[in-house]
Amino acid sequence: MADQGSINTLSEIGSIDSMVFSLGKNACAASRKLATLSSQIKNDVLSTLADLIENRVDSLIEENRKDLYSGREAGLSGALLDRLTFTPERIAGMAEGVRQVAALPDPVGEEIEQITRPNGLDIRKVRVPMGVIGIIYESRPDVTIDCAALCFKSGNACILRGGKEAFHTNTALAALIGEALSLHEIPATAVQLIPTTDRAALNALLKLDEYVHCIIPRGGEGLIRFVVENSLIPVIKHYKGVCCLYLDKDADPEMAVEIALNAKIQRPSVCNAIENLFVHVDAAGHLLPRVARAMIDNGVELRTDSASEGFLLGVKGMSFNALTEEDLYEEYLDLILAVKVVSDIEEAIKAVNAYGSSHSDGIVTNDEEAARKFLNEVDSATVFWNASTRFNDGFEFGLGAEIGISTDRLHARGPMGLRELTTYKYQIFGSGQIKQ
Amino acid sequence: MADQGSINTLSEIGSIDSMVFSLGKNACAASRKLATLSSQIKNDVLSTLADLIENRVDSLIEENRKDLYSGREAGLSGALLDRLTFTPERIAGMAEGVRQVAALPDPVGEEIEQITRPNGLDIRKVRVPMGVIGIIYESRPDVTIDCAALCFKSGNACILRGGKEAFHTNTALAALIGEALSLHEIPATAVQLIPTTDRAALNALLKLDEYVHCIIPRGGEGLIRFVVENSLIPVIKHYKGVCCLYLDKDADPEMAVEIALNAKIQRPSVCNAIENLFVHVDAAGHLLPRVARAMIDNGVELRTDSASEGFLLGVKGMSFNALTEEDLYEEYLDLILAVKVVSDIEEAIKAVNAYGSSHSDGIVTNDEEAARKFLNEVDSATVFWNASTRFNDGFEFGLGAEIGISTDRLHARGPMGLRELTTYKYQIFGSGQIKQ
Repeated sequence: MADQGSINTLSEIGSIDSMVFSLGKNACAASRKLATLSSQIKNDVLSTLADLIENRVDSLIEENRKDLYSGREAGLSGALLDRLTFTPERIAGMAEGVRQVAALPDPVGEEIEQITRPNGLDIRKVRVPMGVIGIIYESRPDVTIDCAALCFKSGNACILRGGKEAFHTNTALAALIGEALSLHEIPATAVQLIPTTDRAALNALLKLDEYVHCIIPRGGEGLIRFVVENSLIPVIKHYKGVCCLYLDKDADPEMAVEIALNAKIQRPSVCNAIENLFVHVDAAGHLLPRVARAMIDNGVELRTDSASEGFLLGVKGMSFNALTEEDLYEEYLDLILAVKVVSDIEEAIKAVNAYGSSHSDGIVTNDEEAARKFLNEVDSATVFWNASTRFNDGFEFGLGAEIGISTDRLHARGPMGLRELTTYKYQIFGSGQIKQ
Repeated sequence: MADQGSINTLSEIGSIDSMVFSLGKNACAASRKLATLSSQIKNDVLSTLADLIENRVDSLIEENRKDLYSGREAGLSGALLDRLTFTPERIAGMAEGVRQVAALPDPVGEEIEQITRPNGLDIRKVRVPMGVIGIIYESRPDVTIDCAALCFKSGNACILRGGKEAFHTNTALAALIGEALSLHEIPATAVQLIPTTDRAALNALLKLDEYVHCIIPRGGEGLIRFVVENSLIPVIKHYKGVCCLYLDKDADPEMAVEIALNAKIQRPSVCNAIENLFVHVDAAGHLLPRVARAMIDNGVELRTDSASEGFLLGVKGMSFNALTEEDLYEEYLDLILAVKVVSDIEEAIKAVNAYGSSHSDGIVTNDEEAARKFLNEVDSATVFWNASTRFNDGFEFGLGAEIGISTDRLHARGPMGLRELTTYKYQIFGSGQIKQ
């Protein structure tokens, strides 16, 4: 178990590589035990963990202060410091999150498929944990608890590698997890925090394909690219969320304004907020001024193509920022919106597929044929008809919780809950069959 | 389309990188069209392809001779030359394989799940093609046709990179595929052979994550490691098939001998043949001599641990080759079998998990409790109870065909058929929902 004491093991073991190797080997051994735990025991551990979190508010806040102090010294931005900060409310929310994971159905052991072959072989496809999952994340320390709870409930061992900004907080949280595991006599190696934020340790982890079966990076595009470039282990990820909304010529004007506004401003810093708005030329005359008005009133900066500008000349307080092609690829994560007029739905679909990041895209229209075309031809994880892209989220899908959203095509696409943290195996029941 | 003529494009385009970039971009554009093709059109194309293969036996054999000539010049082994050789029968078998793929159900468009949320959002999880699949393979040219047919039927564009030994044959086959596509007015860029076997082209392909969504390498462990180490694109693979059979103390002796023999000798060069045999110490006295007799009579070399030797002293014609620990990790792909006595089922499970490659492992026993323990605790893609490991195969599972067998935990584990070449997307039907 990676608690503060285990930082010493660095010198004891002699090198970061061999330390990470041990973490991997121990995680793999622990994963075999986790795979056979009953749902009841897993839920009991999570319940104990939630209690521990609530009982240790003061010491968690004390450890968190060390990170905040270092963060301020290091000149972290206000937004980053805010994400890093633990308050009693945030800690209570974390405990509540763990209880919610405990309450979710256990995916492990489900029989997904059964086939009986003409030769009598009885083939069963059974859901099982992946084994060992490595989670690489940045500053938010609550990810430590979220991910540990999700991996544990799905029967996986995990190795956590948090950011250096949250090192003390993460170490304290990992110690609590270790305590909860030990109280139920589960090996503490089921959840291990890498006891250093040295990048050499991350590199070593990414090469450990003998013991680690899946890597999930969460954070900025730079971190994720580093992980993909260096990992020998399969990675599930999304690089970024460049989400697009298309207002069709048959869009209901009221709905178009409301959805565009919600998708942009309800929480602009998240991956399923829109960055690009495409508007059908036949609707631009009546839709664009209304949308622009609503955006401007809510502090959104518009970057407009020349066609849009033509439709927006009369809008009061409108300042024109010329849209460049680079803008359309950009994930602003801020109150900025690219606006472009398209001549038809084909051009809209082409633009979404070209500039979007295959994450969450939507169409607003009353024309079912147009909607179905868009739903089928936009090549994204989640495509919306007449709803805000902000609903692309594990909670909103009813998964109960999510470990991330994938824009990959392999394994999981879109929001990933407990089931997406499992794989399957084939168990085959024979009566002496041999191959002819 | 990659036919012989397109080798010229190398100099025309200026560099291998930009040539591969064009292949990827064109494949991605083609994939959007393939995703919307009806099953009928896809089946018609495959039927045309099967006819073309049958009608061009002579020219295929002529192109194949060029490769055989170069292969002999290059000193290829007899086994490799055999795998490379086209005969009229093999060509007919290839055409028949294409017809079988045409006859399989089309996985694309299947609605996998439907959820209606309390806010009225109607969420549909729909099976769709992955997009563009890169297939990297070695000497067997029939892989060109198999993989192209499977990718095409599942609605994916593919980029094929075959081995240099089969370059002329592959180029001729790719030209036939292009002809079949063109006859049905499908873009020939739906199936493209990289028109060079320069490793720089493979490297360029593996970096093309903008356009290629999945890489499937087929071949030796060295090639597969190269692909994993260099790919930015998700890879599905198995490195090797070190498969194990465990004869439990309650194994039926007759069945134990038959299954062990079948799993070893029925086709020793394939990935689901066994390399390791573990025998419970209480059964070794009566089982081991019978198994050894059968193996020796069929030309199998046994590598035995010292405990096994004790049980085999009386076996006529037995020559002892001491088993090393390295032997247990080895994929012989030949008439060689490692034999080791274990003290109980726990030791057997531990040995399978330690030495096996998580591919295909089996237990022979009449004890259901032991069998269930083995099925649950052996951490492999496919685990057999009282059946030969040779059944771990897409055809034997009723998938109709397979593109490979995965020992990964992500996306697909075990045999991969058409369905495993697809992903899903979420299509969400709303009525103006916005997030609160």
